[in-house]
Amino acid sequence: MDKDFLQKFIDIKRETKEMINIDPLQAGGKLTNEARQALVEWGDGFSVCDFCPGRLEGIKKPPIYDFVYQALPEFIGADIVHLTHGAREGKFLIMHAVAQPNDFIIIDKNAHYTTYVAAERAGLEIKVMENSGYPEFKINVDDYEKIIKKTRNEQEGKIALVVLTYPDGNYGNLPDAKRLATISKKYKIPFLLNTAYAVGRMPINMNEIGADFIVASGHKSMASSGPIGFIGMKKEWEDILFKKSQYFKKKEVEILGCVSRGTAIMTLMASFPSVVERIKKWPEQVEKAQWFSEQMEKLGLKQLGEKPHKHDLMFFEAEKLYEISKTHKNRAFFLYKELKKTNIWGIKPGLTKNFKLSTFAANKEELQKVVEVFVSLLD
Amino acid sequence: MDKDFLQKFIDIKRETKEMINIDPLQAGGKLTNEARQALVEWGDGFSVCDFCPGRLEGIKKPPIYDFVYQALPEFIGADIVHLTHGAREGKFLIMHAVAQPNDFIIIDKNAHYTTYVAAERAGLEIKVMENSGYPEFKINVDDYEKIIKKTRNEQEGKIALVVLTYPDGNYGNLPDAKRLATISKKYKIPFLLNTAYAVGRMPINMNEIGADFIVASGHKSMASSGPIGFIGMKKEWEDILFKKSQYFKKKEVEILGCVSRGTAIMTLMASFPSVVERIKKWPEQVEKAQWFSEQMEKLGLKQLGEKPHKHDLMFFEAEKLYEISKTHKNRAFFLYKELKKTNIWGIKPGLTKNFKLSTFAANKEELQKVVEVFVSLLD
Repeated sequence: MDKDFLQKFIDIKRETKEMINIDPLQAGGKLTNEARQALVEWGDGFSVCDFCPGRLEGIKKPPIYDFVYQALPEFIGADIVHLTHGAREGKFLIMHAVAQPNDFIIIDKNAHYTTYVAAERAGLEIKVMENSGYPEFKINVDDYEKIIKKTRNEQEGKIALVVLTYPDGNYGNLPDAKRLATISKKYKIPFLLNTAYAVGRMPINMNEIGADFIVASGHKSMASSGPIGFIGMKKEWEDILFKKSQYFKKKEVEILGCVSRGTAIMTLMASFPSVVERIKKWPEQVEKAQWFSEQMEKLGLKQLGEKPHKHDLMFFEAEKLYEISKTHKNRAFFLYKELKKTNIWGIKPGLTKNFKLSTFAANKEELQKVVEVFVSLLD
Repeated sequence: MDKDFLQKFIDIKRETKEMINIDPLQAGGKLTNEARQALVEWGDGFSVCDFCPGRLEGIKKPPIYDFVYQALPEFIGADIVHLTHGAREGKFLIMHAVAQPNDFIIIDKNAHYTTYVAAERAGLEIKVMENSGYPEFKINVDDYEKIIKKTRNEQEGKIALVVLTYPDGNYGNLPDAKRLATISKKYKIPFLLNTAYAVGRMPINMNEIGADFIVASGHKSMASSGPIGFIGMKKEWEDILFKKSQYFKKKEVEILGCVSRGTAIMTLMASFPSVVERIKKWPEQVEKAQWFSEQMEKLGLKQLGEKPHKHDLMFFEAEKLYEISKTHKNRAFFLYKELKKTNIWGIKPGLTKNFKLSTFAANKEELQKVVEVFVSLLD
């Protein structure tokens, strides 16, 4: 193989590393210093398996067992936690374990694309619970009752699962999950709450909400390297989701024995004490998000989704920027380029009229700089 | 949450990091310096997604696209490569995509446990191709023909897949994969070669062998952090294994959109130029393995599996050590403890009579030290 060609794979720098990050996908996954140390210490393949008793989650040195069986369940208010490669893999695992092909699944219109794709992989029929449309795109959970009844009346198959995204990744809306738990209980349908953008950012208690399962993401919201996430569940589901192999009695079928056989579990653990601290400051995060939204609206942009806003993820509509882009020399890329020039990262190249961002990782001074770029562009 | 309890998750040192490593699971996954740099640079969650065009493997900056579409296919002699979380996830993906529940799968007796568990997760019926038993435990691939005929005569279902482990993780045997490809073609059954312990250690060419699919592991054999691996396949399988979602046209269903959204793909890439170099030295690795086997046999241990041995993985039977363990103060742990004392890592605690190891990561001087420990114990 050509040596010059091979050179391109080494010593690659990440140019955005030190920038102000408002990318919704990245704002909650930036490593702590503790996690960065863990990365290096535990980087080698299968390093965590030095003292393996037969399954990853049983490892006591490093203390993965204490983390999975004690720290995480307490943190999210679940009876049981098991690791996965991420929230999407958790969703597929649950669907694959509790549903049969051609069963129905009811998901909210604001669901992440991976909820659709996981259901598709599991062979499920998807029924979509609509949102309220422009401008708030709210999910009224009471409507789930209608769709449950309608599906039961009109369809042969079983409704295997109800899913709610909390919050969704576009608008950062937080629907009434507790109420949906009551509805799903009434109809005896298991309820999965997707908290990929919640656990690690804000306080979440699965048992208080009343969900059967939640999925969470380390690389999305817990200052961890990826891919890693977990499922929280009520005790009664453990034997169904994590049933042991008929061939190897210690190995769980749905995770193919072990999941995160590498450094990601170590970064998730190393950041955990900081994550426990940061969720205590969630009210300040919400205040910062609302402040930012106000500043942007003063400039004539419109924040879509719930208002007053209760999450750091938000979506803006910006007619004026779109107008400017029509005649700007960089066209639709002008907003992206202007932000990059001022060391701000996270709004997708080519977007001007509609874009999403997160205020989670940036502090108020940094967000002030973001506002100033918008001021200068709209001047 | 209690602060003292939380402290246990940070600043955890890996005591085995600098030891001579003969652990079969770890010997091929030790990072290169280039990979260690990549870890730190790309450690943040979703860092590789800075310039995402809609799917991970399409990312050109960093050059994941060139790596997956050009470098890896050329390296393993496959038409197409796609990333997975590892070899086991690759096996499940293939089984899930090409087989229906209750179909039959024929696997070799030496298969890794994850081959069983992946088939179990996919709902498949497993038929096991026996090995030759003690002491070589060889897979005679011609016997596959018998089991194919027998299964077809006696069973209703379809044989969806034939699997061969190359080499297996216990004995390091390398069966005649090329011959099995011919047999599987004759019976029109797709053929999967599990090369988790081959790709990255020794030269492998999927198309020369004639397999339909191979699975490989970054953290096991390519000096990469985990979890990461890939599937190599013939072109005609791509649309079946990696079919696009009906809901999101860029997203592939079986990988739920994207797999390795983190640092592992960067370590796999960064180590790749070194891996390309190291497989050129495979004849020296085999020579070293055979030399080590001879030294151990001179001491009265017996190397099981194929002889002369053609792989760094090997299995020993050590009656004399077992005898010593019966009266030693550390009992069955004495071998593990004696090795650890001399800075040697990789034989499982509690084993004396039968154990496996790998000579891949240790150089000849280091292996000489290993031999000397055995000399001293058997003296």
